[in-house]
Amino acid sequence: MELRPVFFIIGILITVLAIAMIIPAIVDAAVGHPDWLVFSKAAAVTLFTGVSMMLTTRSRLGNFSLRQAFVMTNLAWFVIAVFGALPFTFSELELSFTDAFFESMSGVTTTGATVIVGLDFAPPGILLWRAILQWLGGVGIIVMAVAILPVLQVGGMQMFRVEAFDTDKVLPRAAQIAGGISIIYVFLTAVAAILFWSVGMNTFDAVAHAMTSIATGGFSTYDASVGHFANPAVDWTMSFVMVLGSIPFVLYLRVIRGDLRPVFADAQVRWFFCILGAAIVLVALWLVATSLMGPLDALRYATFNVISVMTGSGFSTADYNAWGSFVLSIMFVLMFVGGCAGSTTCGIKIFRLQVLHSTARAQLQRLMQPNGVFFPYYNKKPIPEAVASSVMSFFFLFAVCFALLTIGLGLTGLDFVTAVSGAASAIANVGPGLGDVIGPSGTYATLPDSAKLLLSVGMLLGRLELFTVLILLAPSFWRG
Amino acid sequence: MELRPVFFIIGILITVLAIAMIIPAIVDAAVGHPDWLVFSKAAAVTLFTGVSMMLTTRSRLGNFSLRQAFVMTNLAWFVIAVFGALPFTFSELELSFTDAFFESMSGVTTTGATVIVGLDFAPPGILLWRAILQWLGGVGIIVMAVAILPVLQVGGMQMFRVEAFDTDKVLPRAAQIAGGISIIYVFLTAVAAILFWSVGMNTFDAVAHAMTSIATGGFSTYDASVGHFANPAVDWTMSFVMVLGSIPFVLYLRVIRGDLRPVFADAQVRWFFCILGAAIVLVALWLVATSLMGPLDALRYATFNVISVMTGSGFSTADYNAWGSFVLSIMFVLMFVGGCAGSTTCGIKIFRLQVLHSTARAQLQRLMQPNGVFFPYYNKKPIPEAVASSVMSFFFLFAVCFALLTIGLGLTGLDFVTAVSGAASAIANVGPGLGDVIGPSGTYATLPDSAKLLLSVGMLLGRLELFTVLILLAPSFWRG
Repeated sequence: MELRPVFFIIGILITVLAIAMIIPAIVDAAVGHPDWLVFSKAAAVTLFTGVSMMLTTRSRLGNFSLRQAFVMTNLAWFVIAVFGALPFTFSELELSFTDAFFESMSGVTTTGATVIVGLDFAPPGILLWRAILQWLGGVGIIVMAVAILPVLQVGGMQMFRVEAFDTDKVLPRAAQIAGGISIIYVFLTAVAAILFWSVGMNTFDAVAHAMTSIATGGFSTYDASVGHFANPAVDWTMSFVMVLGSIPFVLYLRVIRGDLRPVFADAQVRWFFCILGAAIVLVALWLVATSLMGPLDALRYATFNVISVMTGSGFSTADYNAWGSFVLSIMFVLMFVGGCAGSTTCGIKIFRLQVLHSTARAQLQRLMQPNGVFFPYYNKKPIPEAVASSVMSFFFLFAVCFALLTIGLGLTGLDFVTAVSGAASAIANVGPGLGDVIGPSGTYATLPDSAKLLLSVGMLLGRLELFTVLILLAPSFWRG
Repeated sequence: MELRPVFFIIGILITVLAIAMIIPAIVDAAVGHPDWLVFSKAAAVTLFTGVSMMLTTRSRLGNFSLRQAFVMTNLAWFVIAVFGALPFTFSELELSFTDAFFESMSGVTTTGATVIVGLDFAPPGILLWRAILQWLGGVGIIVMAVAILPVLQVGGMQMFRVEAFDTDKVLPRAAQIAGGISIIYVFLTAVAAILFWSVGMNTFDAVAHAMTSIATGGFSTYDASVGHFANPAVDWTMSFVMVLGSIPFVLYLRVIRGDLRPVFADAQVRWFFCILGAAIVLVALWLVATSLMGPLDALRYATFNVISVMTGSGFSTADYNAWGSFVLSIMFVLMFVGGCAGSTTCGIKIFRLQVLHSTARAQLQRLMQPNGVFFPYYNKKPIPEAVASSVMSFFFLFAVCFALLTIGLGLTGLDFVTAVSGAASAIANVGPGLGDVIGPSGTYATLPDSAKLLLSVGMLLGRLELFTVLILLAPSFWRG
């Protein structure tokens, strides 16, 4: 396999990352924090690596083969997580490389699990860097989901081939789509920042939270997460932004063209809101019925935390561990659900649940009338057999990876609830798990290094929709 | 829908159940226990109901329609659980009807979850009745799996159509196969009883445990389950019998004809032993590595308890809750795995995991060579698309039912571990869950009635392979 063009692209991405590191350096310098040196150092190392890689592998970017595209996708996320970790290791936080890598991987995959305790007193550059990692990760995911995964036919994503962009060339497509999506992404981030600022956040918090909430990432600038603000307006606004980040971004392209209909006609969006609404109502009713809160507070806290878990953001405004196991069970299930394909969310995703539901439905009809012909439908179109089979294999592999990750985490000595919920949270890129250790009021700081590495693998697996990573394990992939 | 022939069959089954009740009555009378009256009373009520039902619905048993077969299958298990509960309510244990129904459902579905505390001092008739329920349930399951489910095409079971018996008539097939299977079942039970007796059990315990271990049921005659005997020979013998109960019983028919090859050539059997072996080795190594036991004890306890959980038996010789979350995670995953199709085990079952694995494998190959043609294989034959799709829908519905059951149990106030593991244990017909409440050292006695009823529904769902029950919820099923 010719890897030069792959490394060339990776070189470009590393260079972009190096340039991004200059922003927190400037911020730290502006407030007079010595950490500006940390970012300058990290930027220098990263820039040097990126540029050398580009120069030594310079090649014409023609057509990527499928295998090249798979290798590039894996390598890109891994390498960015490695270099993204540099500022954490260099900084006054003095994180071990494992901790720094975990934090960085959690950032770029928009998971939001953190090992840093004492965010309230952390240097602004570090807080901004965490936000930037999630923000870049967020846009990277959308571009990947719209431009690359459909071509690679990963996990049923071929359903989302955008006809207009449909050429066989991976790169031109990616560049073309990345343009439109990025503009919308920047615009929505700006809108979110202004909204947060207008409801009372300071400018820094507003920008940082705008970047991490549109990316459904979950990194906050406070240990108490969004609960720190204790402000209903903040909760409602951020709930809204997280939902914005969970809708297929291609639909926004249509909205811009003045066509609002597709957003509401989209089956995936409708299911997303139905599941979300049902979960919020159930949790809110439970909070009222158990006298934990009054109706208004119940609605506010249920809405924010359910949206945060289901979209895989991972912010929290309350320790829902204390809300009883009905809520915990719902949260546990919602972790797996996720948002819409083509958004910044992770998890199994709504469209896959729709395909699975539709297939199971057709199956039940076939049982009643074995000689009848029943097709599963999605968005009023019959689901091609290849897509159904791909989605079902994804679901099976998701369960297998979840099971293996849970067992692996058990091996590192975590208690059962931490192992089960940590595995789910990592593979679905949610952030917090359940229980006291890694729950909404805890952090991943106390976990052993082995668990942190396993969880990092889980985050990458989930983010790249399993197949993209697992295919590298097939010996035939390397034989050609 | 013409329900007369359905009720006629149910009447026959109820009558058989009534006759079975006479056995514990005789045993109680023989040891002079007043509970013989309980069983006589229960038998009278049951016999009266069964016979009246037969008389009032007498009809020629011709060809059952698919819908009739579905209704009959559901009704049969439900009604048997209801009448099987009578002795428990009438007895000196004074169980509420919910408790009695739970115990009876747990019996006939061979789950093995119990609400009775104080088995060591319970009347022998009750202990025998629990064993009889599981024993009858066990043979019922095999006959259903071999003769009925393949015709109903439930969850990929159409792969196991036995060619020789292949007619369109449900009942003649059932009767024909039931004969052969039942003889083997009785024979294996007798062998097991003799084995147990020869390693030191008294006759009563030997017979009772033979009935519940060949059925991979899990009801014991002691609160401490098989741990009561504290006898390595008992552990090893019973491990062997549980494995016997987990292998497709049709293969025994071939063994009788002198052909041993199919047993070892069967892909399902091979996978079963591989997964079982791997889990036993991992758990035993862990027990040794963590200095919980010496190597010999580790092998003995790991073998027994892993086999008990994976085959869905639910006996225990130790409280594996204390073995750390590595073992708990493995046990949790094994609960779902189950044994071979056509045996007394439940869970997802090995052949389905093989179909899912094979499909996912073909999927990965297709990703690498989008223009290639790759078929999933099972037992060296290509898997028909209808089977693959049916198995995948089963897997999805299994996950959905598990999730809903967990949430439902959370609503009844159970803690998270009890809710999650109870749901898994019920739907996979295992018996004990994890944690202190319903774990191997606990019972279901303290659970609220609502949880017991939900778990009973879960047991029935799992036992009837989901589809059989879920199809009744489709409005179109009733419209015709």
